[in-house]
Amino acid sequence: MAPSRLLAATPDAVAAAARRVMARCEELARVSATPGQIERVYLSPEHARVNRLAAEWMRELGMRTWQDAAGNQVGRIGDPAARALLLGSHLDTVLDAGRYDGIVGVLIALEVVRLLRVPAEDGWTIDLPFAIEVVAFSDEEGTRFGTALLGSSAVAGAWNDAWWTLTDADGVTLRQAFLEFGLDPARVGEAARRPDELVGYLEAHIEQGPELDRAGEPLAVVSSIASARRFQFVVEGEARHAGGTPYDMRHDALLGASEAALAVERICAAEHHIIGTVGRFEAFPGAVNVIPGETRFSLDLRGEFDGERDRVWTTLGLELDEIMGRRGLRWHAREIHRASAVFCAPLLQDVVRAGITATLPARAEDPPVIFSRAGHDGMALGAITSVGMLFLRNPEGISHHPDESVGAGDVAHGIRALTESVLHLAAEPR
Amino acid sequence: MAPSRLLAATPDAVAAAARRVMARCEELARVSATPGQIERVYLSPEHARVNRLAAEWMRELGMRTWQDAAGNQVGRIGDPAARALLLGSHLDTVLDAGRYDGIVGVLIALEVVRLLRVPAEDGWTIDLPFAIEVVAFSDEEGTRFGTALLGSSAVAGAWNDAWWTLTDADGVTLRQAFLEFGLDPARVGEAARRPDELVGYLEAHIEQGPELDRAGEPLAVVSSIASARRFQFVVEGEARHAGGTPYDMRHDALLGASEAALAVERICAAEHHIIGTVGRFEAFPGAVNVIPGETRFSLDLRGEFDGERDRVWTTLGLELDEIMGRRGLRWHAREIHRASAVFCAPLLQDVVRAGITATLPARAEDPPVIFSRAGHDGMALGAITSVGMLFLRNPEGISHHPDESVGAGDVAHGIRALTESVLHLAAEPR
Repeated sequence: MAPSRLLAATPDAVAAAARRVMARCEELARVSATPGQIERVYLSPEHARVNRLAAEWMRELGMRTWQDAAGNQVGRIGDPAARALLLGSHLDTVLDAGRYDGIVGVLIALEVVRLLRVPAEDGWTIDLPFAIEVVAFSDEEGTRFGTALLGSSAVAGAWNDAWWTLTDADGVTLRQAFLEFGLDPARVGEAARRPDELVGYLEAHIEQGPELDRAGEPLAVVSSIASARRFQFVVEGEARHAGGTPYDMRHDALLGASEAALAVERICAAEHHIIGTVGRFEAFPGAVNVIPGETRFSLDLRGEFDGERDRVWTTLGLELDEIMGRRGLRWHAREIHRASAVFCAPLLQDVVRAGITATLPARAEDPPVIFSRAGHDGMALGAITSVGMLFLRNPEGISHHPDESVGAGDVAHGIRALTESVLHLAAEPR
Repeated sequence: MAPSRLLAATPDAVAAAARRVMARCEELARVSATPGQIERVYLSPEHARVNRLAAEWMRELGMRTWQDAAGNQVGRIGDPAARALLLGSHLDTVLDAGRYDGIVGVLIALEVVRLLRVPAEDGWTIDLPFAIEVVAFSDEEGTRFGTALLGSSAVAGAWNDAWWTLTDADGVTLRQAFLEFGLDPARVGEAARRPDELVGYLEAHIEQGPELDRAGEPLAVVSSIASARRFQFVVEGEARHAGGTPYDMRHDALLGASEAALAVERICAAEHHIIGTVGRFEAFPGAVNVIPGETRFSLDLRGEFDGERDRVWTTLGLELDEIMGRRGLRWHAREIHRASAVFCAPLLQDVVRAGITATLPARAEDPPVIFSRAGHDGMALGAITSVGMLFLRNPEGISHHPDESVGAGDVAHGIRALTESVLHLAAEPR
């Protein structure tokens, strides 16, 4: 396919769009619960503030806006009766986050709308065979309640009523948080979209890994999003006096959990496409002179395929039985998240590939195709519509960290490639 | 030495004293910052409440009472001009503590005073060649500020001004906590006692270990209090995205710290009289999907002798260099407590032995002599006076735990033995 004439004519507009995205990433980074760090969790005052900002930016583009029943911010442009192509990503963050994970995808989507707009009677519209909706998802990371993809699960009609009793670190339930944010828990179902309303979902995102940087490539087509499971572990032993209790009478929950964390590393590292991470870890009662009687930790397990992920989980369970049995400890784990691998739709992989090729026509080879080890809102949306993703190079693969970065030039390529992808999709027979 | 005629005549009084101690342990257990658990930390409202209770009980016995400049509660009986024998222990607790650690020693001291009292013109006095002061120390455990023996260090004149900036979990400094409790930081030196005012310090305490229970012995003479050092470790790595970062690019601070905790166990368990415990342990930022970039943990290291304790510390440092070097992590440790082994004075060991023998005359052998792996206020007081300790059997050695216990019969033996010890000390030529 040839490069779009529309975009060939607007290099300045794309460069300006990239500058706007970079500036807005800075602006959003200042909306944080913790001074000097970036922290925006689901249903927080910061969530409300960035939704208001995003809505303002959407309205500037002539979009009709609403906050849905799960706190996702949506803007729509185009024929009100048409099916919609969803573009977007998320605005929530991990603790002490970077500036780009999720955020850059929402802002790129807005610039795509800006490039595609045409004057209309009442302001602006788009001249495409579908409407466009930009969605800023509200909880992709799961930082506050431990369960990820709450925002996109609501859109996918996959809300689970068991989630209402999840609590944050302060003991606030998800239900209370909804009420405090001004949302009605009884109406969360209204966030759900029907498959027949949608054309598909396209998301631009930084890679959150080093593969593009290592290969010297600015953009990639995403083939699939990793399979993931998350668990919360409790190891129980006996809290006793640190001085008076000889080693042969100890049941130290911390040492059992330490062995477990190292077993996760050993078992996963021996596999090809499996990554396991223990991110939360705390010993109780947590006194200098008391043997820990309880230790709690999380496990985040990801793989390219569900089968290998589940095989590793089984192996790990046997290993934990051995460790805890030897130490006279008890253990149990509660699954707090499970997502099957989601494969990007072949048609959307094709249009993303065409978008990259139109943007970087001098490349000799096809653009790289990689699978995403990180989870994305597309995992939830895959249940109701086709999903496609475009990855942007992420220097040194640093993400979920203040040093997370993306180049302004790569953002310009990303804006152009996603716009071209939308035009290629519009040109497909339907 | 023959059993004391005084006590031989008062078995009912001793049994009543033991019942009173057990009942008061229950009463004090209800003074807690956390409902359903026992938690009384230094300079807290609970500290103030138990000091008031202890002062009331001291005054019932005809003692003159005061709270000293470091928040220790003191009661005195006898000739105002005489040197004082200090009896006591502490009323502060670890988190989720048992009912007896420290507490039972203060209450036994009060019952010793009750048994030794004789009528006097203005109420009661004691007919001994020294005064008796019962001291309820305010901070033996170091639960709130991480540094133990604050109360007894003040009494020993060993207050360290560097402590003023220690902070609790809420960021409150020791200085602020003094002011909020109603104490004047500038006057803490007034808590210090001069060696020439004191005859010695005798403390009854549960063993906090299983040796007496395993040997079927109710009481023991303590030969020394273990040498101890405490450290706060920081391991620094890199917080990165849990999904996108391959194992070869990770610098996971949690895994390094887990290896370190297991190294403490391995190195200490290979030694005869060394115990190392990692009691606090926390990973940051503490999100399910972020590789921990920092982990903090404590180490409590104890040994019978300073030399072997320090040799283990050196070995551990080399081991940590290897672990952290291999994983691309940095580590450092700050020493937050150091106490040399304190040897109980031969004279006070003799009088405690004589007290036990007088209490349990049917025993064929000398009472057991053991060293204390746990730290005690005597470690600080050893700098200004002779120290002696009497241990009570601690079933299964469970301490620093809600299941901590002591038998009422053993408490009766302890009351009798400590009273006899005081009488034996009084009979010594001076």
